[in-house]
Amino acid sequence: MLKCTRCGKTYPETFRLTCDCGGTLFVEREYFDFFGNLGQHLDARRYLNFLPVGGTLLPPPVPAITPTVELQVDPVTALFKLDYLQPSGSFKDRGTWVTVAKLMEEGVGEVVLDSSGNAALSFALYSLPAGIRIHTFVSYDTMPGKLSLLRRLGAVVHFVDGDRMEVHEKAVEFSEREGITYVTHWLNPYFIEGTKTIAYEVYEQAGVPDYAFAPTGSGTLFLGLWKGFKELMEMGEMTKLPRLVAVQAEGYESLCKRSPTKNQLADGIAIPEPPRRDDMLRAIDESNGLCVSVSESETLGALNWLKRAGFLVEPTSAVVLAGMWKLVESGEIPRGSRVLLPLTGSGLKITEGI
Amino acid sequence: MLKCTRCGKTYPETFRLTCDCGGTLFVEREYFDFFGNLGQHLDARRYLNFLPVGGTLLPPPVPAITPTVELQVDPVTALFKLDYLQPSGSFKDRGTWVTVAKLMEEGVGEVVLDSSGNAALSFALYSLPAGIRIHTFVSYDTMPGKLSLLRRLGAVVHFVDGDRMEVHEKAVEFSEREGITYVTHWLNPYFIEGTKTIAYEVYEQAGVPDYAFAPTGSGTLFLGLWKGFKELMEMGEMTKLPRLVAVQAEGYESLCKRSPTKNQLADGIAIPEPPRRDDMLRAIDESNGLCVSVSESETLGALNWLKRAGFLVEPTSAVVLAGMWKLVESGEIPRGSRVLLPLTGSGLKITEGI
Repeated sequence: MLKCTRCGKTYPETFRLTCDCGGTLFVEREYFDFFGNLGQHLDARRYLNFLPVGGTLLPPPVPAITPTVELQVDPVTALFKLDYLQPSGSFKDRGTWVTVAKLMEEGVGEVVLDSSGNAALSFALYSLPAGIRIHTFVSYDTMPGKLSLLRRLGAVVHFVDGDRMEVHEKAVEFSEREGITYVTHWLNPYFIEGTKTIAYEVYEQAGVPDYAFAPTGSGTLFLGLWKGFKELMEMGEMTKLPRLVAVQAEGYESLCKRSPTKNQLADGIAIPEPPRRDDMLRAIDESNGLCVSVSESETLGALNWLKRAGFLVEPTSAVVLAGMWKLVESGEIPRGSRVLLPLTGSGLKITEGI
Repeated sequence: MLKCTRCGKTYPETFRLTCDCGGTLFVEREYFDFFGNLGQHLDARRYLNFLPVGGTLLPPPVPAITPTVELQVDPVTALFKLDYLQPSGSFKDRGTWVTVAKLMEEGVGEVVLDSSGNAALSFALYSLPAGIRIHTFVSYDTMPGKLSLLRRLGAVVHFVDGDRMEVHEKAVEFSEREGITYVTHWLNPYFIEGTKTIAYEVYEQAGVPDYAFAPTGSGTLFLGLWKGFKELMEMGEMTKLPRLVAVQAEGYESLCKRSPTKNQLADGIAIPEPPRRDDMLRAIDESNGLCVSVSESETLGALNWLKRAGFLVEPTSAVVLAGMWKLVESGEIPRGSRVLLPLTGSGLKITEGI
């Protein structure tokens, strides 16, 4: 079932973004016996028994199980999760895959979303074989490479002259005016069901980390990690949650204190008013978590470090390393800690600049 | 050990491209008990016991285990192997990873290679964390996106005014003149040790296909599939090899009859005189295999079909589907066959045109 975080009202598992009261929704199910319920597949289908979809209607580009690479980044052990190796080049495919499967089951044929690029690209890729027509709202400063890919995938692109929040508002208006299903990952509970599988994978690959970082704008990855680890704990696989660390971009903080300067490089998390803010605060509270925000130059330094380590990612992905350095420097993360750093977006899409 | 295919001479497992007699080399080892020797990792490290490297010196961007997606493509069952989901965006990472690990073990610090783009990009990515400086020879018509990525990864790019074979010759000359190790995947036996893991994965994911296709220019994937399936057979996992199908680009055939027109779209396999041609003929012979060549328009048709199925790949990847359609049409592949179609290169690098 779906359950409202504000009033507790429950709904059957149909596609829905919010509660009638306006509260956010999560899928709630009870799971038992993690290892006993793993599938045979060596890809995302491995976790189908923990997902709110039937499993017979799935879009063909199945997300991969991505490598988790352990490297000493003195004085801690970093677990780099190469989640940019997904079919559309970002971790978002996990959430999209579950969402599109759900929409296929419900026979939805046309949707609206808003995105700085990656979510739209992911949705366009999975919608195409599913026969779902997509409208995507983007701002004018979206990377040209991403726009070109979106068009090749048949998405109808609507430009908005405004910032990320205005893009969001225009998409909602269009959806209401045209009566077309709005599927924003900012609210969609099925999206988080996909992203939670990162926690499952990391657990299988490297056990329980002490800290789990996420680039945090709308919070889809942050909340996915929280939900995934929580479910593993409820299944008896661990006794306490990793401490969740939300890494934000300076000037766009929703959880940390808002900075006067802006980090324009981490465009994927430039979301100052995420609708799931309260959910994220709860995740931080429950996991004894932290928030840290990083500047443009810190992001760039981390991006270059990652490139030299052989991880070709986009700038938003680099904030987790920048944030980790800051928390190690300040003494908040003790030496010897094991730290999960998911790398979320491919650098292959950016063939110029940087 | 390494063994020459021409004179049978053997060598210890150090880095070497050819026999003193000029013959091609393969790594030869005896393996037993496939499932008993799999590693715990859910990535390429799963197969370390079957690779000629120690395993302690490995470059960080570990290749993923990529999804194998089964789709009915009437009248056959296609097994699409999403091998474009590798760190540099192509299947070549498998071969590069093993090769760079070997070079690290031997303390090699500078290398020369030639490539139409993907092999160089892969090598540049893995060499960077390994501290290996790379010189790469490319033709002027290499895709700008790939060149830009190569430069970002610190590769020294040498342009050659000529076709793929001339690029190759210039790289060899430079290597001999400067005394720098030449590491072309066209000959390198360690490269094939990496690509053979595709066969292992497919076997774990989907059993033994009736046919295994590969885009075939230099033959690194084709020979990797052959070697991987052969090793599985020697370990008692199967009684006969899948029929190997070499798919070539019109005008650049080395195994099929040379066409008068040229397929310029499948640039990754525009290699009319591959040095491992005799090895490929042996693979076709041993597996009762086939060869088929495809035109530009057939490649484009397949590329569009793949895009609509949610597989965003580059044109060279599409030839396997085009080749399969042709062989189904001609009746050479009977209905109901299970057919492996590896998708080898990411479409994310190509943000314009197509």
